[in-house]
Amino acid sequence: MFSKETYIARRAALKKELNGGLLLFIGNDETGINYADNTFHFRQDSTFLYYFGISAPGLNAIIDIDNDREIIFGDEPGIDAIVWMGTQKPLRDKAAMAGIDSVRPSAQLDEYLKNAKSKKQALHYLPTYRAEHKIKLFQWLGIYPGAETPSVPFIYGVVNQRNYKSAEEIEEIDRACQITADMHLNAISAVVPGVMESSIASVARATAARVGCELSFPTIATVNGQTLHNHYHGNRIKPSDMLLLDAGAETPMGYAGDMSSTIPASGAFSTRQREIYDIAVAAHEAAVNALRPGINFEHVYDHAACVIMDGLKALGLAKGDAVEAVHAGAHALFFPCGLGHMMGLDVHDMENLGEVYVGYDGRPKSTQFGRKSLRLGRKLEPGFVLTIEPGIYFIPELIELWKSENKFAEYINYDKVEKYKYFGGIRNEEDYLITDSGFRLLGKKIPLHASEYEEYLKQRN
Amino acid sequence: MFSKETYIARRAALKKELNGGLLLFIGNDETGINYADNTFHFRQDSTFLYYFGISAPGLNAIIDIDNDREIIFGDEPGIDAIVWMGTQKPLRDKAAMAGIDSVRPSAQLDEYLKNAKSKKQALHYLPTYRAEHKIKLFQWLGIYPGAETPSVPFIYGVVNQRNYKSAEEIEEIDRACQITADMHLNAISAVVPGVMESSIASVARATAARVGCELSFPTIATVNGQTLHNHYHGNRIKPSDMLLLDAGAETPMGYAGDMSSTIPASGAFSTRQREIYDIAVAAHEAAVNALRPGINFEHVYDHAACVIMDGLKALGLAKGDAVEAVHAGAHALFFPCGLGHMMGLDVHDMENLGEVYVGYDGRPKSTQFGRKSLRLGRKLEPGFVLTIEPGIYFIPELIELWKSENKFAEYINYDKVEKYKYFGGIRNEEDYLITDSGFRLLGKKIPLHASEYEEYLKQRN
Repeated sequence: MFSKETYIARRAALKKELNGGLLLFIGNDETGINYADNTFHFRQDSTFLYYFGISAPGLNAIIDIDNDREIIFGDEPGIDAIVWMGTQKPLRDKAAMAGIDSVRPSAQLDEYLKNAKSKKQALHYLPTYRAEHKIKLFQWLGIYPGAETPSVPFIYGVVNQRNYKSAEEIEEIDRACQITADMHLNAISAVVPGVMESSIASVARATAARVGCELSFPTIATVNGQTLHNHYHGNRIKPSDMLLLDAGAETPMGYAGDMSSTIPASGAFSTRQREIYDIAVAAHEAAVNALRPGINFEHVYDHAACVIMDGLKALGLAKGDAVEAVHAGAHALFFPCGLGHMMGLDVHDMENLGEVYVGYDGRPKSTQFGRKSLRLGRKLEPGFVLTIEPGIYFIPELIELWKSENKFAEYINYDKVEKYKYFGGIRNEEDYLITDSGFRLLGKKIPLHASEYEEYLKQRN
Repeated sequence: MFSKETYIARRAALKKELNGGLLLFIGNDETGINYADNTFHFRQDSTFLYYFGISAPGLNAIIDIDNDREIIFGDEPGIDAIVWMGTQKPLRDKAAMAGIDSVRPSAQLDEYLKNAKSKKQALHYLPTYRAEHKIKLFQWLGIYPGAETPSVPFIYGVVNQRNYKSAEEIEEIDRACQITADMHLNAISAVVPGVMESSIASVARATAARVGCELSFPTIATVNGQTLHNHYHGNRIKPSDMLLLDAGAETPMGYAGDMSSTIPASGAFSTRQREIYDIAVAAHEAAVNALRPGINFEHVYDHAACVIMDGLKALGLAKGDAVEAVHAGAHALFFPCGLGHMMGLDVHDMENLGEVYVGYDGRPKSTQFGRKSLRLGRKLEPGFVLTIEPGIYFIPELIELWKSENKFAEYINYDKVEKYKYFGGIRNEEDYLITDSGFRLLGKKIPLHASEYEEYLKQRN
């Protein structure tokens, strides 16, 4: 946890953003995997962490602005909890570390909320992303599952704080990124033909675990990099494969790192791989160099997509004017995802609050295939932390579908693309802070240029 | 998956157990960690796996006994799913592998159930253990969260099948136990003073991952073995420590292994450690040798507890008659948990259906501290698979509490116990099948006797 002053100041700032009312913070509970007591690792809700800092199940909190009260609702551990879970710090002491001196039993929250409701206080809550949140709202306030009405002012209040990372947050995210870089450096060294994808994922995970970190998201470690969220790790790596690793650490305080590497298993890219790879790197560097306060990230995305289409045109896979192709959406055959996203207490920061509020300042997102997956499309400001992760992917089913429809035939040379149908996918990813003057890399450098990979891979056993 | 004949036969047997009605099988969905799309690893509900075999989210199924229909409700993957998750086998083909030829869109389940309800069909469903199950029952049938009435005949129908493992299930559990044994053998070799607990947990996990397995439960790897469910891995192992490792593999089909080891970090137990350790081993072997069809497992538990109390009496920690002490519950100061549990598709098999039905054949469980944690207290039968895991634990808070109350002073020598207050905890655990003539170890032997550990640890680097 940060010092209690941090949490006190955050809550004070949030209260100023809202015009009275009662703010309800629903903490996360344990989730049973296949029965109630066999649980996934516990993860507190990020907004709860941001304002109250306590990573423990069974807690909820309120900020009652109208009555100037901040209360955590939860129960002190009994002897059974100590026998099964070990020595427990009293909840009252944990709350004090967040500057909260009012702790009440869980059972009293129900009455508190019903009372507030009967007094016509404005009740604000955030969007629900777990079924347990819906159940709680039903039990406390009689809100039917699916009929929730999250508070837009509350969302904006939170987003307007959490989007701007403080110095101590940047230090913590930088730590997450250092560990994330170590995960990649160790994993890259372990990529040798004959090894299983699962072994590479295990190396990355163990690197995080060794320093007390969780993963910030399920690791992607795949020879089929064209599948964007591929969590299968059952392939044995062949000499001709490129392994795409997308993995990140989450510090005990909950802050995330997120990087991607594309590793030639043989130690060097083939000529064909390198031609595509170099285009992805050119798009990456173009995007990074465009970062500065005031630029709209959607323009950075357009720029990276144009670099990709120009590069593919030089190889004969694309044709026509790149700017027009990108405007029309033709690039999405090769680049069907976004360029990057906000990062903080969540790897996709505040995705649960709504990407439109976090990444678009309330402006509607595009519905175009490819562009609709861009999570960030607003003007950048100092204090934003985001990822840069352009990629080039050859997805056989998508190629077949578009070819059968002759889609964007003016921009795509399907005869040539057909020859790359089983090429796979490439993505590199780094994390950046927007500064007053431009940008700063978080964590440390991992290989990006093909020559950097080839140099680094020489030191393998 | 097993062959489709297995699933067809299981469903046919279940139908015979029920006297008509409609059986509803609620499949598990993805669960968001900190937002909807950042998910924990997917785990299908075990009863769904048992009768329908398909490990994928978004599915539910019914067996409509009255109308002789078996239907899986779910949706075929679209192009977005393929782009993000890779090539998908059509749901219809997956269903066919379970011998189901009727697949309907998810949206039709609601109507099917409402129709059945209006026709006054008996609707059977199992206990819910995830909030998402409660939401579904609310949306489909208007059942208020918390007001569910699970079907006892359905529970008994499932328990009466799943408790008796078939030859092909035993083969799969044996595979899980082989991998679990490898997890322990590799982890034991990695226990060296100076190493972090997290590194040992990582070795166990990587061993499972390498052969495509998940963990059957969150790993315990701790120098504080006295805490029964301790998931903290942040301590550095000291030469005088014993590391308690409790870890198991889950095969891709969902079957579990579950073993525990207590490893002297220096390579040899101290005299004091060994005196306690040998008592735990004696209790372990006494319990194993008592296994046979017809014996009530609660008697095996009593027997193991008596061996522990007799051993502690010889060391001066306990006193009086061991049988009387165990009857009164005094042993629970040292042995506050159960002796073992059923194991199969869940590591605590069918705990979600109710331990009383699975482990006690409907008879109420004891409410006595310690004995209440015994998950299995029925007569053993051939085909049962269970763990044997007695332990001896010195829990400072529990010792202080009981001592302050002078609890069971006729059986416990608190002056002597006080000297062991920070001794830690010991547990060893193996998995057994009950056979017609007695028992069979599943998986392979890992060290149990102190001398076996000391011999095995000599080969460390």
